[in-house]
Amino acid sequence: MQFELTQEFLESIIQAIEKEDDAFLKSTFDDFYSEDIIPIFWELDNLQRRYILNLLDVESVARVISNLDETTRHELFTLFTPKEIARFISELYSDDAADILNTLPVKGREEIIAHIEDTETASHINELLRYDDDCAGGLMAKELVKANINWNVKQTIAEIRRQAENVEKLYTIFVVDDLDVLLGRVSLKKIITSKDTTNISQIYEPDIVRVETFMESQEVGEIMQKYDLESVPVINVQGKLVGRITIDDAIDVIKEQAVEDMQAMAGISTPVEEDDTVWKLSKARLPWLIIGMFGGLTGAAFMGLFEQNLVLIPAMAFFIPLITATGGNVGVQSSSLIVQSLANSDGIEESNWKRLKRVLLVAVFNAFIICTIVFIFVLLIGHPIKLATVVSSALFFVVLLASVMGTITPLILDKVGINPALASGPFITTANDLLGLAVYFGMASLLYQI
Amino acid sequence: MQFELTQEFLESIIQAIEKEDDAFLKSTFDDFYSEDIIPIFWELDNLQRRYILNLLDVESVARVISNLDETTRHELFTLFTPKEIARFISELYSDDAADILNTLPVKGREEIIAHIEDTETASHINELLRYDDDCAGGLMAKELVKANINWNVKQTIAEIRRQAENVEKLYTIFVVDDLDVLLGRVSLKKIITSKDTTNISQIYEPDIVRVETFMESQEVGEIMQKYDLESVPVINVQGKLVGRITIDDAIDVIKEQAVEDMQAMAGISTPVEEDDTVWKLSKARLPWLIIGMFGGLTGAAFMGLFEQNLVLIPAMAFFIPLITATGGNVGVQSSSLIVQSLANSDGIEESNWKRLKRVLLVAVFNAFIICTIVFIFVLLIGHPIKLATVVSSALFFVVLLASVMGTITPLILDKVGINPALASGPFITTANDLLGLAVYFGMASLLYQI
Repeated sequence: MQFELTQEFLESIIQAIEKEDDAFLKSTFDDFYSEDIIPIFWELDNLQRRYILNLLDVESVARVISNLDETTRHELFTLFTPKEIARFISELYSDDAADILNTLPVKGREEIIAHIEDTETASHINELLRYDDDCAGGLMAKELVKANINWNVKQTIAEIRRQAENVEKLYTIFVVDDLDVLLGRVSLKKIITSKDTTNISQIYEPDIVRVETFMESQEVGEIMQKYDLESVPVINVQGKLVGRITIDDAIDVIKEQAVEDMQAMAGISTPVEEDDTVWKLSKARLPWLIIGMFGGLTGAAFMGLFEQNLVLIPAMAFFIPLITATGGNVGVQSSSLIVQSLANSDGIEESNWKRLKRVLLVAVFNAFIICTIVFIFVLLIGHPIKLATVVSSALFFVVLLASVMGTITPLILDKVGINPALASGPFITTANDLLGLAVYFGMASLLYQI
Repeated sequence: MQFELTQEFLESIIQAIEKEDDAFLKSTFDDFYSEDIIPIFWELDNLQRRYILNLLDVESVARVISNLDETTRHELFTLFTPKEIARFISELYSDDAADILNTLPVKGREEIIAHIEDTETASHINELLRYDDDCAGGLMAKELVKANINWNVKQTIAEIRRQAENVEKLYTIFVVDDLDVLLGRVSLKKIITSKDTTNISQIYEPDIVRVETFMESQEVGEIMQKYDLESVPVINVQGKLVGRITIDDAIDVIKEQAVEDMQAMAGISTPVEEDDTVWKLSKARLPWLIIGMFGGLTGAAFMGLFEQNLVLIPAMAFFIPLITATGGNVGVQSSSLIVQSLANSDGIEESNWKRLKRVLLVAVFNAFIICTIVFIFVLLIGHPIKLATVVSSALFFVVLLASVMGTITPLILDKVGINPALASGPFITTANDLLGLAVYFGMASLLYQI
């Protein structure tokens, strides 16, 4: 069902462009969803892209432009005049139009807006540009259909016919008073299934979920998910209806958050994609590598203090990777569980003490199993019982400490407003490496009385 | 805007239940979204929950039950007869009803279905129970509104009034032929804004995106996202319309996938939540800890072969954590980028060679910076130039190897059908620990000619 771009198909497109076979191209792209043109555009050069766009109607061009990634879109814009771009932009929902304009330099942006013919569209876009990207105001679109509480069904249907021209995705009619204050909503289904003379006030649903312009995007996404909303009205501080957010925008927010968390966990400091430039990728990856490196160097300096141990018992070195890796693994497991539970927190938060108790129980159980295996194994490969005791008892405490560290670090980060997913990555690994070494060498000094 | 449960509020509820203050409870929960009752239920015991449910209308009870987590729901079900449960279940969408029944033992499930009075509802549920959880058939609901291609708008509106009773979320009317084969759709907006005598064939939209019953849930989620669909029709092999999937179900799939990937990355082998039982948590965490442990023990056995190096140059041990940690960090970064790009793959896949080339360039650049710092630092803390050379050159190759490993492992896993996120976690860390040790000790043997 889903379109898959093949090399053969791509070549047929490129050949048709070269031969200026407009008939073939037009008939091909007529059947296409604009979303499926995007992967083709990635493989074409700018002039080939322009050739195709010239064959499409303005609505399709607008949709392609809105679905393109930022880089490709900027490349493409260099081939069009501000007036042409304004024509495409006018076809979009106001939120998508504002998002695109937001990525342009101020001068270019204003030139384009100046060319938008419909003054209402221009003023909508200007209003949306005022809001930050990551709040409800930045997510909302101005296009919506509203009905006055004093109307009847017939008046409302007339109004829908008038207003709905610009609103393709019509899920619900918002109900407002004379001052535009949001009162509730009425579903299209209810409108269709009611008599013409029924008053909106009799069939509308009050007490609906709404969000305010300044609410964070992430919270909007959570609310829409929690209450299963396909669209949510946005109000300003006076309670007036100023826009609506549809579920597709909320999904984008949810997806972005997931990618951000995953990258934070993997120690990538700014969101990047695999096919970004070498320079961008290096820059995003270096910070945590350097922090990890200084962790490793600190570990080296720390072990320097215990050189005597290593000289007397060189076999101690063999188990350093076991100690550090186990600490790292346990820490990452613990913190990812906390990160996940912070993201889905509802209800009364569990006391941190109760959390820690469960974490410690799990840690003791797992540590016991691992340490038993390790103890037996170390003896089996011919090391003295004293070393087996040092290794396995150090490991026991490392598992416990790493569990506690992995649990409290994200809780603390969350309290001070830093993304706790950061904690689940290289930070926990580095901290636990150092902690593990300290426990291991401390334990050895104690048991060997060096 | 979002409801937050406080301790005070909870106590007022518990007191009201004890004093049997039905008036207070009723007036409180009348204003409540059923989603907000869930966190309260978590804090109550089973009899308190039942007390509240008795005060709610059957529709609200159904919604609460459908939103509850599995464990709490099963506890609650012990207080109701199959007949009562059947009444609640009948109020739900068929997909939610089937999901709930799917979690019950076969006997209990059949008793409940036998008590469902409406035979159409029962047969819908029975049909849905046949499908696997993770395919389109398992996601879809039977409730939908369809119109015959030969009808006009007036007939369609009459049919909407008749069919729409059970369909609260009505986004679109599906258009079918006499044999129920899906032809397209027509939006409610179009129906409202068209004349009564207009034929559906004139205003319907053909060529719409559809999915087949056996398509994987994850793919359904991707398609709905890609094409910004709020609902998608499901067809069987004959092309007949058998159900629809709404965007809220697709969001659940997207979220579950994100959590699953995150846990795989963190080395948790089965999906768990932070507040699961100690036993469940331990079981989910042990497998990767044990694999990591055997990795560490293999490393120890491997280093045993190089004991001579450690006896001659005890300071070599100091840098073991630096080598293993850097390899781990680089590996996790590389693989998480690949995992993310595999999840969003569109267009023609980049050749693996092109991928590797970029990965290596990034690696060389980052390795160069890190190795220079390490070289200087090792000299600064008073080690001989030979050791500094061994450490920093080993580190250089470790970064390169870990990048390559981190890139190809998820690609291979993906090819053989294993979730590549698994590769980004403990597997890469463990493998890179061993690889790093081999390079480090190999390099030392070479330069010291031991």
